[in-house]
Amino acid sequence: MALTGEEVAKHNSKDSLWVIIHGKAYDVTEFAPEHPGGMGIILKYAGKDATETYEPIHPPDTLDKYLDKSKHLGPVDMATVAEVAQEIDPDEVARQDRIAHMPSLEQCYNMMDFESVASRVMKKTAWAYYSSGADDEITMRENHSAFHKIWFRPRILVDVEKVDFSTTMLGTKVDIPFYVTATALGKLGHPEGEVIFTKAAKKHNVIQMIPTLASCSFDQIVDAAEGDQVQWLQLYVNKDRAITKKIIQHAEARGCKGLFITVDAPQLGRREKDMRSKFTEQGSNVQSSSGAVTDNSQGAARAISSFIDPSLSWKDIPWFQSVTKMPIILKGVQCVEDVLQAVEVGVQGVVLSNHGGRQLDFARSGIEVLAEVMPILRDRGLQDKIEIYIDGGVRRATDIIKAMCMGAKGVGIGRPFLFAMSAYGLAGVDKAMQLLKDEMEMNMRLIGCSSIDQLNPSLIDSRALNSHATSVPWDTLSVSSYDPLVSPQNRVKSKL
Amino acid sequence: MALTGEEVAKHNSKDSLWVIIHGKAYDVTEFAPEHPGGMGIILKYAGKDATETYEPIHPPDTLDKYLDKSKHLGPVDMATVAEVAQEIDPDEVARQDRIAHMPSLEQCYNMMDFESVASRVMKKTAWAYYSSGADDEITMRENHSAFHKIWFRPRILVDVEKVDFSTTMLGTKVDIPFYVTATALGKLGHPEGEVIFTKAAKKHNVIQMIPTLASCSFDQIVDAAEGDQVQWLQLYVNKDRAITKKIIQHAEARGCKGLFITVDAPQLGRREKDMRSKFTEQGSNVQSSSGAVTDNSQGAARAISSFIDPSLSWKDIPWFQSVTKMPIILKGVQCVEDVLQAVEVGVQGVVLSNHGGRQLDFARSGIEVLAEVMPILRDRGLQDKIEIYIDGGVRRATDIIKAMCMGAKGVGIGRPFLFAMSAYGLAGVDKAMQLLKDEMEMNMRLIGCSSIDQLNPSLIDSRALNSHATSVPWDTLSVSSYDPLVSPQNRVKSKL
Amino acid sequence: MALTGEEVAKHNSKDSLWVIIHGKAYDVTEFAPEHPGGMGIILKYAGKDATETYEPIHPPDTLDKYLDKSKHLGPVDMATVAEVAQEIDPDEVARQDRIAHMPSLEQCYNMMDFESVASRVMKKTAWAYYSSGADDEITMRENHSAFHKIWFRPRILVDVEKVDFSTTMLGTKVDIPFYVTATALGKLGHPEGEVIFTKAAKKHNVIQMIPTLASCSFDQIVDAAEGDQVQWLQLYVNKDRAITKKIIQHAEARGCKGLFITVDAPQLGRREKDMRSKFTEQGSNVQSSSGAVTDNSQGAARAISSFIDPSLSWKDIPWFQSVTKMPIILKGVQCVEDVLQAVEVGVQGVVLSNHGGRQLDFARSGIEVLAEVMPILRDRGLQDKIEIYIDGGVRRATDIIKAMCMGAKGVGIGRPFLFAMSAYGLAGVDKAMQLLKDEMEMNMRLIGCSSIDQLNPSLIDSRALNSHATSVPWDTLSVSSYDPLVSPQNRVKSKL
Amino acid sequence: MALTGEEVAKHNSKDSLWVIIHGKAYDVTEFAPEHPGGMGIILKYAGKDATETYEPIHPPDTLDKYLDKSKHLGPVDMATVAEVAQEIDPDEVARQDRIAHMPSLEQCYNMMDFESVASRVMKKTAWAYYSSGADDEITMRENHSAFHKIWFRPRILVDVEKVDFSTTMLGTKVDIPFYVTATALGKLGHPEGEVIFTKAAKKHNVIQMIPTLASCSFDQIVDAAEGDQVQWLQLYVNKDRAITKKIIQHAEARGCKGLFITVDAPQLGRREKDMRSKFTEQGSNVQSSSGAVTDNSQGAARAISSFIDPSLSWKDIPWFQSVTKMPIILKGVQCVEDVLQAVEVGVQGVVLSNHGGRQLDFARSGIEVLAEVMPILRDRGLQDKIEIYIDGGVRRATDIIKAMCMGAKGVGIGRPFLFAMSAYGLAGVDKAMQLLKDEMEMNMRLIGCSSIDQLNPSLIDSRALNSHATSVPWDTLSVSSYDPLVSPQNRVKSKL
Repeated sequence: MALTGEEVAKHNSKDSLWVIIHGKAYDVTEFAPEHPGGMGIILKYAGKDATETYEPIHPPDTLDKYLDKSKHLGPVDMATVAEVAQEIDPDEVARQDRIAHMPSLEQCYNMMDFESVASRVMKKTAWAYYSSGADDEITMRENHSAFHKIWFRPRILVDVEKVDFSTTMLGTKVDIPFYVTATALGKLGHPEGEVIFTKAAKKHNVIQMIPTLASCSFDQIVDAAEGDQVQWLQLYVNKDRAITKKIIQHAEARGCKGLFITVDAPQLGRREKDMRSKFTEQGSNVQSSSGAVTDNSQGAARAISSFIDPSLSWKDIPWFQSVTKMPIILKGVQCVEDVLQAVEVGVQGVVLSNHGGRQLDFARSGIEVLAEVMPILRDRGLQDKIEIYIDGGVRRATDIIKAMCMGAKGVGIGRPFLFAMSAYGLAGVDKAMQLLKDEMEMNMRLIGCSSIDQLNPSLIDSRALNSHATSVPWDTLSVSSYDPLVSPQNRVKSKL
Repeated sequence: MALTGEEVAKHNSKDSLWVIIHGKAYDVTEFAPEHPGGMGIILKYAGKDATETYEPIHPPDTLDKYLDKSKHLGPVDMATVAEVAQEIDPDEVARQDRIAHMPSLEQCYNMMDFESVASRVMKKTAWAYYSSGADDEITMRENHSAFHKIWFRPRILVDVEKVDFSTTMLGTKVDIPFYVTATALGKLGHPEGEVIFTKAAKKHNVIQMIPTLASCSFDQIVDAAEGDQVQWLQLYVNKDRAITKKIIQHAEARGCKGLFITVDAPQLGRREKDMRSKFTEQGSNVQSSSGAVTDNSQGAARAISSFIDPSLSWKDIPWFQSVTKMPIILKGVQCVEDVLQAVEVGVQGVVLSNHGGRQLDFARSGIEVLAEVMPILRDRGLQDKIEIYIDGGVRRATDIIKAMCMGAKGVGIGRPFLFAMSAYGLAGVDKAMQLLKDEMEMNMRLIGCSSIDQLNPSLIDSRALNSHATSVPWDTLSVSSYDPLVSPQNRVKSKL
Repeated sequence: MALTGEEVAKHNSKDSLWVIIHGKAYDVTEFAPEHPGGMGIILKYAGKDATETYEPIHPPDTLDKYLDKSKHLGPVDMATVAEVAQEIDPDEVARQDRIAHMPSLEQCYNMMDFESVASRVMKKTAWAYYSSGADDEITMRENHSAFHKIWFRPRILVDVEKVDFSTTMLGTKVDIPFYVTATALGKLGHPEGEVIFTKAAKKHNVIQMIPTLASCSFDQIVDAAEGDQVQWLQLYVNKDRAITKKIIQHAEARGCKGLFITVDAPQLGRREKDMRSKFTEQGSNVQSSSGAVTDNSQGAARAISSFIDPSLSWKDIPWFQSVTKMPIILKGVQCVEDVLQAVEVGVQGVVLSNHGGRQLDFARSGIEVLAEVMPILRDRGLQDKIEIYIDGGVRRATDIIKAMCMGAKGVGIGRPFLFAMSAYGLAGVDKAMQLLKDEMEMNMRLIGCSSIDQLNPSLIDSRALNSHATSVPWDTLSVSSYDPLVSPQNRVKSKL
Repeated sequence: MALTGEEVAKHNSKDSLWVIIHGKAYDVTEFAPEHPGGMGIILKYAGKDATETYEPIHPPDTLDKYLDKSKHLGPVDMATVAEVAQEIDPDEVARQDRIAHMPSLEQCYNMMDFESVASRVMKKTAWAYYSSGADDEITMRENHSAFHKIWFRPRILVDVEKVDFSTTMLGTKVDIPFYVTATALGKLGHPEGEVIFTKAAKKHNVIQMIPTLASCSFDQIVDAAEGDQVQWLQLYVNKDRAITKKIIQHAEARGCKGLFITVDAPQLGRREKDMRSKFTEQGSNVQSSSGAVTDNSQGAARAISSFIDPSLSWKDIPWFQSVTKMPIILKGVQCVEDVLQAVEVGVQGVVLSNHGGRQLDFARSGIEVLAEVMPILRDRGLQDKIEIYIDGGVRRATDIIKAMCMGAKGVGIGRPFLFAMSAYGLAGVDKAMQLLKDEMEMNMRLIGCSSIDQLNPSLIDSRALNSHATSVPWDTLSVSSYDPLVSPQNRVKSKL
């Protein structure tokens, strides 16, 4: 017999703590203190229905995996659960109004357009989680800005009637040299979550990298793939290697073709925009007295980071090689010394990445590290021993072409697809990928190349890439007392 | 006997599609799917009078050339054509008001002033077509900005009472080292179109380059020339070389003195500002259901590009040399390797150009490529084998002088004259050219040179030209918490 | 018997000038012309109670030290002192309102947040004194900006489970490599003054440097220390060396472990923001006629500078070495030549500093000088002969890590703690230090180091550090006539 | 017998054209077409009293010098001259209101403050004349900005109790190493004109350079000097060398100690801000029909330029040396080649100058040219053969010190004193000079030098001086879609 809402509502304190999720009750009294996202957020829903908040940040199999069956209390008669009187939230009303008048998909002409629309229609906390970066978000912005230091030296009078920009990544043929990189918590942006990327990747014949911290379960994402569609696995390494082994081997069994081990996140980054958005959301509920209990002012990023092993080191690589036959790629390499080490230990690839600017501020962009890496690899004849990928800041086909000219095998794209999905769902991601293909065809022609293998360093001038100067600070008084030149003014309307 | 409006109005669908242009009806049922500008825009005028929209983007001989005579249905009794009830467009009302109060021509002191006025008085779509560039419009802006990296080392105590800045281009004597470069669709800016440039060029003794994609017909433009006035032809090469041959030989027969083959546009650029302006205009008509049919959200640029051959290559050059005696100049060369190749194949000149920033974003500016090209030409003793022109971003006589110091034979100017024409017609273009002459006289004196041949590299410092750095991204929090210095404030008025 | 307010009020002119401070009257007729802060400010309180203005800028023992006992007139019956009718100051009302709604401490996530809050809740004059710098405040801003020219080359796959960032400074073990540097007039920000730093430093096990110009007396600050807490003394050298000797030997006797002699302030800086804030404050009282008398438009900075000896030179160093056994550190060294000289004369350390940008504008940042100094010290094998500290602009743990990578022993932090104190008192400073520790732990992990001794120059790219370029001035007309790209606009709401 | 206003008023056309100036009538019918400022401005006052407009731009002896005595018609009975009904000019009303509330002189703490105040209280046309520069005013702004590329390497522990920054220029001892450089039309800013500078220069013991185009007559300015006060003469060379000879020899006879020949102005610059201000002023009077006649839209700058000989060349130098014993200095030299030539021909000095950015835009700053010149002079042992001055952009004592460190003998300052005079008259200029002295004393101490001869290149880092880079143009879409970090927000006020 189902539990009643009244019964559940009694267990609303630290001493006895029940919550309802998807119509079932759970006893989390013992679990709450260990909750990666902090006990405070659970206390907020003590004795109540927590589904809406729970849903986007936990894959469907979370409760089965992490909460002992004995704590699964069974179904609740939802008709008996007291409706929480929803306060009218003026921010949410304004957001719904913006959604009602959002631009049509046809009005999006580039990746930044999706970001602009998403910023207006997403929930503030979801937006903050996706859009935030480490510290002052300088690396995050540098990631795209770095591409602007690279300029083209296009060739003319080349027959570019037929342009083919397909290539291969870890042996898989793809239509265009990008892959959908792993990003966490897809359901914050769209109720369907990561499977949207699976479908779009299939349509455009590119590879999806499945994140460890997906909102959908791993199997849901693999099940959404069709035919011989290729997927990779992104892995956060758990302190308990047995869990990690199970994840890897399950992925391999289900057909994953690449294991991308994240190596730039021994600890998940502090993202202040994310933290601040969280705080504000609960500002009216969390009064000073209760402030001591809750510690979830840390934002979504910190909440999901408990299972990452900060002791992971080069010594662990042989073990990975022993438990899987998938090619192993280190994701988050940031200097040439570590690329050389990666060759040494025999992994199949590296992703030069700073985690989208979400970990260490003032880490260099992937494209800058690429400029450091490739000449040295070529000098030592190692350029074919390992595949080099980059991610971070890719927004235009010209960005992709620049990376390919310098020697990358492909680039990862994350946020732009997250934003396209959050604003327009599958249609948005489909359009985003199509725009990149349109730009790619155009720009391959304009640079004078008809296939990827023709891209080479002589087509670019990247000498400014390692420039990191700031301007001398503004001379406030001079600048403000300067009387700027103006264009001719309209004539004043004559008075009647 | 003339057709009636009622008769024409019946043919208003894909299955039978008639339009009225300049008082005559045409059956475009078969042609519509191949219309370079998309079928959507034709459907919009199905069974109606399309003249106003048709006029500025099609030369007068278009229908004769491209639509089979059998589809020319003959005159329509315009009195029987239903008046389209014109909605009052508040944007247009505002524009007419701005026109009524626009600044007088005397208030324009430089090229930027014309642009400023044009932006206020032109139709939004026309402005968008002229002012837009590729992708993020970074190359477009870099084109002018690049000149700012070049600084002068003027000489003093030189007798500059008489200053002569005439020079020759491809053997023609001109009063000042610029020519009117080819720009498409002149009637978008002014009902008379490109013949305005013909008249102004005559008055100031400079050369006009006639565009393939002019709004006026080629012959109208040539007919507008007077006496021994010199014109050049800009050529987009058609896949059907017979058409191209006809164009070239007709131009030569009519007296053109130079053939400028565009080599930087195997595909015409995506210009998002242009695309967006087009979309907005039709926003209220194109509902989601019909959105699938129309594809003219591509803007004016894409609409006119169907006849360009992307397979054009160096192999084709001898054929051009075989069909004309006009000097051949490659327009759109972007690196020294291709200039050397141009010398090799024996063409008479190149224009270092990125198509006004309208094709490949992050292409370098013409002036920067010039700095790469000239020292190598001089090293190899080739500087007199070929004439080097640049275009893009020229706004001041100092820009012209900088190019001449570095070794250019002359510079092309496009948008400034388009904007002067759009705002003030012939008087505007005349004034624009006169302003450049005034600036030229002044600045030749101030740099200490009395003739063009005295201009040389020692008069400038161009070492910063290939710098393409971006600043480290703003430190938002520090910048916003800094309390800037202020100038002394006025005293508060004492209260009564 | 206590004096009456009426009696005191009679002495309200230059000829006989009494003031009340903390309930006692003082005859300052003779002293006023020599008052370091100018006679004007004293005249303003002639015959009145000056306590509120006096308090924050004079340590408690000032009157005893500097005013002859014969001028101490004894207690005043405060009940008889006429209440000054307080005008309602709209600025102060607005400030009190801002204080009432100031953000909670939990909302501060970094050092800049404290500055932002402090700017809103501090008195304008106090804010101006703390936040101002020399001339155009360019060096002040460069100090933080300089860190942005340094980028990381992090290492991956290093076991960073346990991270220890403790280190030693002048032999003292500290938890994190920063110390609280000396800043003047703490009571301008908080009524308790510098003892707040003493308490916070104890809690976080870092060293406090006690300023000569503290608002609290030296002994109060030392008394506030607990257990074996280490403090240093910052010294302005008085022309009267006997006074200086007394200060030094008293500090040593009370247990100070380092003597930091300020060498960058032979004259205290003009800080125009400070001067302007002072002027404005008295704007309504100081009418033009009386303007001649008052000269305290000099701001707080100049008011406190009278006791600094501008003739201090290298010749004086042996004398300091003769009067104390404390290690001697020169604070304010600004080029490598003087560091080598410091090694030569045998002092124990230097602080590369420009006094927080408050003295010489266009002095280089400490971190830039560090980049000049360390390679030369290492070349000459002197790197262990002297400890090198820097201060100025440190706001993030990444700043600290950069300095340590380059070879500093530690960094001084001043303003951020002043602002944290001014906004939130001890809790603010505690939180500020904790935030730095949190950032430090995170970023040590992310750069791939588990202890301070692993930090080394290969982990950074600091090549841009000595770049001091300004951009070519804005091209006002072009910039203003450029029509920027826009993101897709929301659809207009349909009218009812 | 005096003429009547009625009589004069009849001569109000091109055919017979009389004007009244200072109560006397003049027949300018023949002169008008040759008027350097254009005929239009004279026609505006035909038959009327032109005194107010005439006064500030013509020295008192102009009519005697340039208009034949036969055209001097004698006194007018001013009582009979019709009062011109003054329209109320709202701009002038607003200006008078700003003057009524202008900041007190005490609130000016630096040179920029005077500029800020002047911009608010000067007549628009006068402000435009003083503040404008050539073309885009980029060189004008670069002049000050260039100093920001130079940073200090100060020395510490130097005895700087006594600081002496006096020096000599062309043998004259001065208190501080600047002189008042020549600027035209002083009465536009203040009714007393250039004699204000004479008095201030005397008080501060610096040299005044007397401009050819002063509003006061040369003799008035010399008469205003006291005792052994030294003045120099700035010379524009007239085509009629007899006139020039008379000017030079008169100056020498009256005691001038230096002849500064302007060599950077063979033609006076176009200054668009000046031109635009002029146009606007007369907008309501100059209707389109009469527009053809008037040509005074050229602004004040062009109006005064008729007497400059553009054929002046090195060949003329010996003639100057033959007609005067004054030291000769070339003002406006802009590259090292011409400095070497100046040594060769035996002049005594050069001023590295670009005429305050008013002639050739993109001319380099004087301080940058100094960095080019001095090492080469020293290499060739010529550094003592010639005195090198610079002007342009000097606003702070640190700017002066930088120039002296690099090897200048002194710097010229112009606009700051013009603005100080325009805002506050003599008191303003006096204060401006005193502020520079205060800054000078402070900064000499802070850089560790007690006399001018100690200043040397090792005290600065000027490596960035010849950097002229622009940033890659803004990425508009990315920048606008970036959601910047914000400081903690105030809590919302609770509602009642």
